[in-house]
Amino acid sequence: MKIVSSTNFDTRRSIDSGTETQVSAVQEILLRVKEEGDEAVRVYTERFDRVRLEQFRVTEEEIAQAAGQLDPLVLEALNEAAQNIRDFHARQVRQSWFTTKESGTLLGQIIRPLKRVGLYVPGGSAAYPSSVLMNAIPAQIAGVAEIIIVTPPSQDGTINPAILAAAQIAGVKQIYKMGGAQAIGALTYGTKQVPAVDKIVGPGNIYVALAKREVYGLVDIDMVAGPSEIVVLADETAKPRYVAADMLSQAEHDPLASAVLVTNSKKLAEQVAIEIERQVALLPRREIAEASIRNHGAICLVDDLDAGFNVVNRLAPEHLELLIENPFEQMGKVENAGAIFLGEYSSEPVGDYFAGTNHVLPTNGAARFASGLSVDEFVKKSSVVSYSKQDLARNGKKIMALAEQEGLSAHARAIEERLKDL
Amino acid sequence: MKIVSSTNFDTRRSIDSGTETQVSAVQEILLRVKEEGDEAVRVYTERFDRVRLEQFRVTEEEIAQAAGQLDPLVLEALNEAAQNIRDFHARQVRQSWFTTKESGTLLGQIIRPLKRVGLYVPGGSAAYPSSVLMNAIPAQIAGVAEIIIVTPPSQDGTINPAILAAAQIAGVKQIYKMGGAQAIGALTYGTKQVPAVDKIVGPGNIYVALAKREVYGLVDIDMVAGPSEIVVLADETAKPRYVAADMLSQAEHDPLASAVLVTNSKKLAEQVAIEIERQVALLPRREIAEASIRNHGAICLVDDLDAGFNVVNRLAPEHLELLIENPFEQMGKVENAGAIFLGEYSSEPVGDYFAGTNHVLPTNGAARFASGLSVDEFVKKSSVVSYSKQDLARNGKKIMALAEQEGLSAHARAIEERLKDL
Repeated sequence: MKIVSSTNFDTRRSIDSGTETQVSAVQEILLRVKEEGDEAVRVYTERFDRVRLEQFRVTEEEIAQAAGQLDPLVLEALNEAAQNIRDFHARQVRQSWFTTKESGTLLGQIIRPLKRVGLYVPGGSAAYPSSVLMNAIPAQIAGVAEIIIVTPPSQDGTINPAILAAAQIAGVKQIYKMGGAQAIGALTYGTKQVPAVDKIVGPGNIYVALAKREVYGLVDIDMVAGPSEIVVLADETAKPRYVAADMLSQAEHDPLASAVLVTNSKKLAEQVAIEIERQVALLPRREIAEASIRNHGAICLVDDLDAGFNVVNRLAPEHLELLIENPFEQMGKVENAGAIFLGEYSSEPVGDYFAGTNHVLPTNGAARFASGLSVDEFVKKSSVVSYSKQDLARNGKKIMALAEQEGLSAHARAIEERLKDL
Repeated sequence: MKIVSSTNFDTRRSIDSGTETQVSAVQEILLRVKEEGDEAVRVYTERFDRVRLEQFRVTEEEIAQAAGQLDPLVLEALNEAAQNIRDFHARQVRQSWFTTKESGTLLGQIIRPLKRVGLYVPGGSAAYPSSVLMNAIPAQIAGVAEIIIVTPPSQDGTINPAILAAAQIAGVKQIYKMGGAQAIGALTYGTKQVPAVDKIVGPGNIYVALAKREVYGLVDIDMVAGPSEIVVLADETAKPRYVAADMLSQAEHDPLASAVLVTNSKKLAEQVAIEIERQVALLPRREIAEASIRNHGAICLVDDLDAGFNVVNRLAPEHLELLIENPFEQMGKVENAGAIFLGEYSSEPVGDYFAGTNHVLPTNGAARFASGLSVDEFVKKSSVVSYSKQDLARNGKKIMALAEQEGLSAHARAIEERLKDL
């Protein structure tokens, strides 16, 4: 693994905005689903997933049977993880609020849940039950009335039981066997079988990502996620075995994933390089992890930790581990990171699966301006204005002056109609 | 004005996603600004704004001189409006928080301001100082360190003094004379004269909107705003003069703006229709308002107020006025609205200019899932995980089981490396 000392080091990649062929394929799929509804979904499901389905909805029986097909330890862990996620996200819930003035005016914000949310869950080999929990539970805690999962079926028309079990644990009952851009179309426009939603969240392949981009505005979407990233900022107190293992835990996701060590310790840098070589050989997903480490991995040697924090803030990583002495004392130097893991027991997979924080986090430098998934993403706010007669009498002329200054006389007139009567 | 009784009535319009020519023009502009920086901005400013500028930044003198060119009443009103906006938005500020467990684990969220934000301010006839306040002040309250305004210059290279005065009141010192897609490019990529930002907000024409869509992901953007909308839900207690004046206040914005009355009173419907005809004739922007009323205006007669609320929730208007008896008692029936104005003195322009709530609101049905601009849009959240040795010892095996279930063995190994030592 290469050790670089440049502080100009950057891992930012460009956004995959698809080829023209992909974009126009997605546009055509969306249009057909909008116009033909379920029949279009049926045709595309047959073409892409190789199964013809009359009814897309997963039955109650299918859901009920899923849990029995899982290892009891996995089931227990999913249940406990779900409870931890609920606990953490329940603390994010905000109340509607208002403020009153002696003059009689009341101003406020009403905070309400979205009504219907669609959750895209990838199928096949990348079927992640943890992702079901991470997306569905914040929506539930926010008070979303209907959560709808879409997920592509296998060729035999079934859904991975781990997905169904996670949905059951999360309390999601509406699950539809459909994937790709056609599923995004169904959620956006609604079909006879699938209700239209207000927001679509969840990861997917390039077609899903492009489809979400296309429908953004008609519905809300979460940010399009890029490959996973981890930056470990470590000093000489860090254990090389832990650093290497945590870097590899992200590298195994994807050949495009990025694992970076930033350290002020030359010794640690060298030991981690050795450990990575040793550990990567032990991995079932060795080829993926090796490609990731080779192309997007790095060990960045810095003069001191402050220089390290500069690198971290420039990278704005999805996951940041602080394997340093007194991490709490240093945490205030982090400007940009999706999630921060402090100390040697806070291995990143603890957050992926279990601690209760959300694992849907901003990638590709978006932590500069974006946040992980939270209850906030499933509420909307309306402002409330109840203006008093006294305030209108006192301020009406000023409001009119501002409207006239902008050339908007009808705005001024609306105030004037009231002032006439006061 | 047409009176319709259909409850299927809808005003939703499609999103203007630009012509292919417009999209490719915007892409070319962005690419050239990315590659050539200020020189490209200079070329496009000369082409579109008909002025050649060496330095884009507005000088301190230009800013200082602006206020003197305004009517003192306007200046006083802007100052008082700014204070009201500050007061309302200061109540939205959230704190970082954490929770601790007896086991030693700490979880939390750090809430931090974005570092740099760009604010697009249209020039020419649509130069709205109120919009400067509404976009800049929430960013300031959030703690954004640098707020950067871009706004297209006149042919003589000057900026509308009302814009500069509003910027000064808001405390914004970095203002650049540039507009269109080239300004969005400069804010996204940075140039020698203009620093790159983390988020771009503010309204603009179709080229600005398309450019924001293109750069979304590299930077954050606010939602692309559509034409203005008002829905007035009124009963027989409402004054027809007020209803008509408020509807016209939105209609004068744009021939595409939409003003709709929903009422259970046939008498009110008829009187408002007459009032609109009478009042529209008095307006300087009569032609615009007439076109808006003709094409996107309606009076929708419903059987009762509950049916009216159904129509309102389907329309999900940007602005909703409740000109009904006991509006506070009924407010809970509103599911979707950007801002809600209660009672006869809460004319919509009160919110546009003065009350302190934000006038940047979701349009075109987006109130189903989106919110007005607030302090929330200028902060980012990082989750924090400090997992204790005790919790890792207790839960490590469960975390490993979840990772293995998803086929992610390196995730499991990262935990296992620690468990070996416990």
